[in-house]
Amino acid sequence: MNGADLLCETLLANDIDVCFANPGTSEMHFVAALDRQPTMRCVLGLFEGVVTGAADGYARMADKPAATLLHLGPGLANGLANLHNARRARTPMVNIVGDHATYHLKYDAPLTSDIESLARPMSHWVGRAGSSHDIGQATETAILEARAAPGQIATLILPADVAWSDTNATIAPKAELRQAAKPDERRIATAVEALRKGVSTTILVTGLALRERQLEKLDRIARASGARLMAQQSNGRMQRGAGRVAVDRAPYDVDKAVASFAETAQVILIGAKAPVGFFAYPGKPSSMLPDDCTVIEMTEEGDDLPLAIDMLADAIGATPKAEFSTRHNPDLAQGKLTPDAIAIALAHYMPANAIICDESVSSGRDFFGKTHGAEPHDFLQLTGGSIGIGLPLALGASIACPDRKVISLQADGSGMYTLQALWTQARERTDTLTIIFANRRYAILHGELKNVGAGEPGVNARQMLDLDNPALDWVSLAKGMGVEAARADTAEGFADLLKSACSRRGPFLIEAVI
Amino acid sequence: MNGADLLCETLLANDIDVCFANPGTSEMHFVAALDRQPTMRCVLGLFEGVVTGAADGYARMADKPAATLLHLGPGLANGLANLHNARRARTPMVNIVGDHATYHLKYDAPLTSDIESLARPMSHWVGRAGSSHDIGQATETAILEARAAPGQIATLILPADVAWSDTNATIAPKAELRQAAKPDERRIATAVEALRKGVSTTILVTGLALRERQLEKLDRIARASGARLMAQQSNGRMQRGAGRVAVDRAPYDVDKAVASFAETAQVILIGAKAPVGFFAYPGKPSSMLPDDCTVIEMTEEGDDLPLAIDMLADAIGATPKAEFSTRHNPDLAQGKLTPDAIAIALAHYMPANAIICDESVSSGRDFFGKTHGAEPHDFLQLTGGSIGIGLPLALGASIACPDRKVISLQADGSGMYTLQALWTQARERTDTLTIIFANRRYAILHGELKNVGAGEPGVNARQMLDLDNPALDWVSLAKGMGVEAARADTAEGFADLLKSACSRRGPFLIEAVI
Repeated sequence: MNGADLLCETLLANDIDVCFANPGTSEMHFVAALDRQPTMRCVLGLFEGVVTGAADGYARMADKPAATLLHLGPGLANGLANLHNARRARTPMVNIVGDHATYHLKYDAPLTSDIESLARPMSHWVGRAGSSHDIGQATETAILEARAAPGQIATLILPADVAWSDTNATIAPKAELRQAAKPDERRIATAVEALRKGVSTTILVTGLALRERQLEKLDRIARASGARLMAQQSNGRMQRGAGRVAVDRAPYDVDKAVASFAETAQVILIGAKAPVGFFAYPGKPSSMLPDDCTVIEMTEEGDDLPLAIDMLADAIGATPKAEFSTRHNPDLAQGKLTPDAIAIALAHYMPANAIICDESVSSGRDFFGKTHGAEPHDFLQLTGGSIGIGLPLALGASIACPDRKVISLQADGSGMYTLQALWTQARERTDTLTIIFANRRYAILHGELKNVGAGEPGVNARQMLDLDNPALDWVSLAKGMGVEAARADTAEGFADLLKSACSRRGPFLIEAVI
Repeated sequence: MNGADLLCETLLANDIDVCFANPGTSEMHFVAALDRQPTMRCVLGLFEGVVTGAADGYARMADKPAATLLHLGPGLANGLANLHNARRARTPMVNIVGDHATYHLKYDAPLTSDIESLARPMSHWVGRAGSSHDIGQATETAILEARAAPGQIATLILPADVAWSDTNATIAPKAELRQAAKPDERRIATAVEALRKGVSTTILVTGLALRERQLEKLDRIARASGARLMAQQSNGRMQRGAGRVAVDRAPYDVDKAVASFAETAQVILIGAKAPVGFFAYPGKPSSMLPDDCTVIEMTEEGDDLPLAIDMLADAIGATPKAEFSTRHNPDLAQGKLTPDAIAIALAHYMPANAIICDESVSSGRDFFGKTHGAEPHDFLQLTGGSIGIGLPLALGASIACPDRKVISLQADGSGMYTLQALWTQARERTDTLTIIFANRRYAILHGELKNVGAGEPGVNARQMLDLDNPALDWVSLAKGMGVEAARADTAEGFADLLKSACSRRGPFLIEAVI
């Protein structure tokens, strides 16, 4: 057995049996080790942003990490943007990054770079395997770090000679996971006291608080105390739709967010962070809360959120029943295809238990409000603002949940970042439906340019913000990667395509020209 | 005038008038400033790897830097792999990376990350603008660092409030460039002494030593002294073809490289680094030189290489005439399309003054040997081993040299990394011809897997190394981005397509199924 085998066996012993990969020469012994392990499912991405984004989608739905395999500093670099999103989603992930053999580093061969410096900003934990004998221990540490609540990015650097050297080390049994921490009773008591004050209160939540059962309890707590329940602006995963509690999200727009919290005297945070502007703007505040708003952090990093919610419910005596959304089947729109018409059609047709991956940016803002009464579904968001996660996220979610329909709400500009994911969707025959919101511009930036008072965009601004010259032809792009596709430019045409796409299996793409 | 205007004016005052860009909200004031400057040419890439790769291609051909505009840490991260290549090519480049407003950083908004940590491994210089008043000075410093010989990557971080704040600072006149250093006469003397020893000597060169005039002098020096003249394995730019000196490159393959240097008693380095293995392999050496080989560094970092060559020629008395390649028009191949047939067709048809961007990886190794007698051309290589530079490099080279035909020799696996470059080629109507070597696999890795002794690839190895399920359809991919394309699978069909593509202008793609 060599170091690569030991690494691979340790992953499998700890229930990590999916590896999203794009290997290179320095990882070839690890590839050979994976080849000796048919129980490890290897999924190739034709670009590393696909690899890390898919590992994120997988873990959000599987509630356990996947491994990634990346080639040296540049391979890691290509995956960093989606690692950034995964870090913000608190997704557990174990990255294996190959490096040159230890004795080769001093020669500064062309692919040499400072991998640690690249990894650190997007990782909670970075380590380097020292020898083939301790690679099992290093892998176990990486896995435990990844699985520490609420989820961490662990990056393990694997020198080629560590992978290829023999070892007599034995495979350790499955490591015992660090349990999420029991919440501090004093913090719960402070929250209870606050909720009994009778002042305007928002309970702001994310993470495991957004699962069906926890939302039900939170709704009852809110009703018992007269508080407003709200989710963070952006969340890794939220369970919603008919039969579940409808919960709003903090607004993205600074003015709307400030208005939303203007009357809030206190905010109770459960897993969430106090709301801040996604960007700073001249003359606008960074914090979305009034200056005199009290912020109560009911939980600490690493706390067991479902237990915290149980403790709070017990202390409050949350006796009212929760109110659930009822299934609402809206009438389909007619005429011109608009984001609104797309949202209505989705509310109408999307099947029960669908997984929605939302990277629709400006075009998809209608979806959330229109689908409280859609069939129950999971809703996965872009959490770190780094565009290019939608298609990989859908790929990974589908690998985790092959029997569920995965629907990508994908803006065209951000979709172009990692369009290579379509090829892996075709290869793995995932049940993924992609809806491209083809407005042929970075629409969000047009709005932002207006906001900075630059007036009408001139030649250079249009050159940087418009995608219409030439127009992207997503049907051809999909075909080029083996995914069937069709185009719609009317509400009726879109609804027909959506209905048919939802009644078949396998990857499909609709270019919705809006 | 605000900080963004001052930055933009400083770039223009220093002869930087092309900006490859993919901006976001935090860069919107800079976009507005660029919009007020019609003399700045803004070129949009639909992914940051396109942006940095194009800036590399531009500077290699223009012999001056372009600017890039990148959005925060993740935008920079997406561009890092091609920055890595540019760093290895010693390409001058000025990156402007937007960041949150200084006062907003402490709120850790979703897109916040440690930009310095990400930038440092792929930059020679990293700076951060402190205020709108000193942004002119900071920009000037970045430009001077970028233009320091032999070329550097300078990354300037631009907080949003520095961009949007007013300033009364004036635009400085064009800064005086730091001249390349005069070579050390003792080092030249040492090289002269070595060349007179009469032992087996290789002169290994790169950078400006690979331009037409310098190669002619080097050839005369080599003939006068009996030394072998050789280029580094991988070089940013090399001038070659009929009427120029034919020079070989150090082999990529370790065994071949070791054999090539086996009889070498001394190596004289001019700009180049002593040859090392691209990767380490069990039981093979890291250095390609014999243990007792003497290494003479004739120049130091930052030296004026053309001047060093002149000094060496004068000292040696390089009186023999140089030998130039003669135009050789090979007979076209027939039957099955092979990499060899493609190389022959190129030697036959490629027009004078073409710029060849080579990222053909394993498939293109025939090209170099077959084209010593082709029409004179510039040859641009993948210098850092980080795949995905070919199409962006061609884009940038064409922006620098709009009247020259640019031909990409592009492997399919690496082409998929930054295929978005095709869209910008269509938009900018560049005269770029892309030849995709469609072998539908990571062929180089199949070879490497064999090298590690893993035997025949099994399910997992094939899953990670083959691209044939489904086969990529490059004609559709190109069409999807507005680039005309056609497929060839015979030598005759390819030659016909190539002939016609070379006689027309504008972007075109040939999928060569080999």
